[in-house]
Amino acid sequence: MVNGHTNFRKMTTATTDLDALIKKMANEAREASLILANVPSEQKNKAILRMASLLEENVELLKVENEKDLLAGRDAGLSSAMLNRLELNDKRFNSMIEGAKQVASLEDPVSESLETHNHPQGFTIEKVRVPIGVIGIIYESRPNVTVDCAILCLKSGNASILRGGKEAFHTNTALAKLVTQALAESGLPEHAVQFIPTTDRAALNTLLKLDQQIQCIIPRGGEGLIRFVAENSTIPVIKHYDGICTVYIDQAASLKMASDIVVNAKTQYPSVCNAAENLLVHANAANSHLPAIAKDLVEKGVTLKVDETSAAILRENGISYETANEADWGTEYLDLVISIKVVDSTETAIAFINQYGSSHSDAIVTDDPQGAELFLNSIDSSTVYWNVSTRFTDGFEFGFGAEIGISTDKLHARGPMGLKELCSYKYKVVGNGQIKS
Amino acid sequence: MVNGHTNFRKMTTATTDLDALIKKMANEAREASLILANVPSEQKNKAILRMASLLEENVELLKVENEKDLLAGRDAGLSSAMLNRLELNDKRFNSMIEGAKQVASLEDPVSESLETHNHPQGFTIEKVRVPIGVIGIIYESRPNVTVDCAILCLKSGNASILRGGKEAFHTNTALAKLVTQALAESGLPEHAVQFIPTTDRAALNTLLKLDQQIQCIIPRGGEGLIRFVAENSTIPVIKHYDGICTVYIDQAASLKMASDIVVNAKTQYPSVCNAAENLLVHANAANSHLPAIAKDLVEKGVTLKVDETSAAILRENGISYETANEADWGTEYLDLVISIKVVDSTETAIAFINQYGSSHSDAIVTDDPQGAELFLNSIDSSTVYWNVSTRFTDGFEFGFGAEIGISTDKLHARGPMGLKELCSYKYKVVGNGQIKS
Repeated sequence: MVNGHTNFRKMTTATTDLDALIKKMANEAREASLILANVPSEQKNKAILRMASLLEENVELLKVENEKDLLAGRDAGLSSAMLNRLELNDKRFNSMIEGAKQVASLEDPVSESLETHNHPQGFTIEKVRVPIGVIGIIYESRPNVTVDCAILCLKSGNASILRGGKEAFHTNTALAKLVTQALAESGLPEHAVQFIPTTDRAALNTLLKLDQQIQCIIPRGGEGLIRFVAENSTIPVIKHYDGICTVYIDQAASLKMASDIVVNAKTQYPSVCNAAENLLVHANAANSHLPAIAKDLVEKGVTLKVDETSAAILRENGISYETANEADWGTEYLDLVISIKVVDSTETAIAFINQYGSSHSDAIVTDDPQGAELFLNSIDSSTVYWNVSTRFTDGFEFGFGAEIGISTDKLHARGPMGLKELCSYKYKVVGNGQIKS
Repeated sequence: MVNGHTNFRKMTTATTDLDALIKKMANEAREASLILANVPSEQKNKAILRMASLLEENVELLKVENEKDLLAGRDAGLSSAMLNRLELNDKRFNSMIEGAKQVASLEDPVSESLETHNHPQGFTIEKVRVPIGVIGIIYESRPNVTVDCAILCLKSGNASILRGGKEAFHTNTALAKLVTQALAESGLPEHAVQFIPTTDRAALNTLLKLDQQIQCIIPRGGEGLIRFVAENSTIPVIKHYDGICTVYIDQAASLKMASDIVVNAKTQYPSVCNAAENLLVHANAANSHLPAIAKDLVEKGVTLKVDETSAAILRENGISYETANEADWGTEYLDLVISIKVVDSTETAIAFINQYGSSHSDAIVTDDPQGAELFLNSIDSSTVYWNVSTRFTDGFEFGFGAEIGISTDKLHARGPMGLKELCSYKYKVVGNGQIKS
């Protein structure tokens, strides 16, 4: 079995060594971040494009390393879904390479002047975008995350410390080596991107307390990992728990639009966080709309888990269903399953979503602007849709040009996170001798 | 001795009751926050102005409660500085009342449209400012924080849960009662501002894990409290550790401006976080500038803790000093004491500040624009000054009209935090049936 911990033990002998290694990495990342904050865009882009060309040049070598992980994963009995996530096939290679080229072409977010305030005493206070500093990324099986995150952090002037999952350890190590090579060849500090050479959780325990060196932690993976990070980190964390998204069909909804949006939100890519998990239908539209929408869903292979009112309607129309239980309203199926409930008003729909949803993406379908406005204002989610599918919550669709993830937090970044969301700001104050009286 | 814990024990009998109380408060705050997010500005302002008038009407009553805290504080042997912070004198009353009126007159940050993106498929994505939700404020002895924070959170549409220090328990309880009365009289949910009726730390342990109800924690007080909160909270925290601010006198600095700024930054209000704690002088300006600046500081009663090079110069000029040790460079004196060091270059000054400073506020005094630019870009602090005193880092000076604190974090808010920094954002997406293909 692939186990970075075991590998690492060959090099060191005690936890104190691991502790020292992580601290050394964090100190070096901090040093690198201070340099990186003032590196011109061209130099960062050169390094990113070099990463892309190194990936192209080393496809065969990387496939060999990836094969080691896949073999070990099969031996360890990983599910086919997990093995699929682990695999660096041609499509994923191309997407990493194209992604790198695209990020190189994006505008550099650093140094943008955001606001200027003229103080009555005659000096100026300018708010300027700057990198966050050192970002720790903790992720699970997809090895392409190594390259994607390294590149997004670099472009936004941040040093990064990457800690991947044990399943992808060989692939990640090989990818990280190429990243370091690209940095060195481009004259950038090679500690600007560092990969933790072990998957021992003790390394995480050390890392998550280094709040003097590391300014932000982004965990990407299952809820267990994210909760572990949130509970153990003294460094601010930007996280994404889950995506329990709802589509609400108002009484004033056109049937065709309603069905198109629900079917798209549920079935176009069911395993992603912006797919719909719940469908609410206004009581006055239940008889007219629910049977047709339910039929369209069933045709796409969707299992319906429904409340009593919906059940009666579906029964009458000969549509098969299962009975929903309380837990279903808060379940992220990530599969061809949807929970359905009839509600008596838009207010009830809003209360339902604010209770059971995950503050991610929710949609109303209606021709009534007043109802839509109430919904858009009252739903406490990062993205609220009126007559649009929830599937658009995504950094690329939002025009960011790239995405490092989606935040379900409300501090710093909410919703899709692009390059700007990987930045902080500072105030530059310029005067000619002003003092406070 | 004033002890909220003891008071609370009269009402309940076990930690589970305290646990249940805190959870109930958090649930009610969450409910209130959903309402508050859509309350018009006029109604919020009405409540804030009512708070101001209730304070005016109840000065005598509040002074009686404050006297209880002061008496208990004296019995408990609190320092005169702590007793001073505790006291609600006329000046502080007026400042609370004036502060409330000023916040009522400020522009409401909620609902401002921040950006709009037109998606190629013909729908719009609008980024709109919204409240954070529920904010927990954990603070120490100053009772005016109760009113200041309640008002700032309310104006920005946030529900708040306040937990004050045990020394001010009677005063805080009386103030909180008036806040609740003002909310009720203005037709706002009275759980929009809640005061925790105990200072038992067990309440904090419960509170800091309620990440489903509470979206942000702001600790205000000593480093011990802030570290406790950062280590125990699963809710995102915005914090302010300390203010170790440095003034650097470049070789190209005018002597008068240099001395004015150093003296102002050190002595105008030494006990605040934006006062200077370190002075660095370029070696080429040490002989010409240091003696005069040192004399000006000594005249103001400042103790100088200096490195060897400075010591030699001061000795020659008959100026008394103490020898600095390594720990002094990272010490926040909050008093008439300053550490002084001669450095050989601007780069050395930058490295010193990035190592020993607290990323708060740092200044360069120079007539050389290139050196100033290098300094402003390279210092990793929330506010960097060129020829201006560090004492201006403050929400009022920055034109925010109010301030809930200063963040030394880099996520979400950095530097002074006003009403906008108490907000998050959401995306409103409006279309006519668009689905993802």
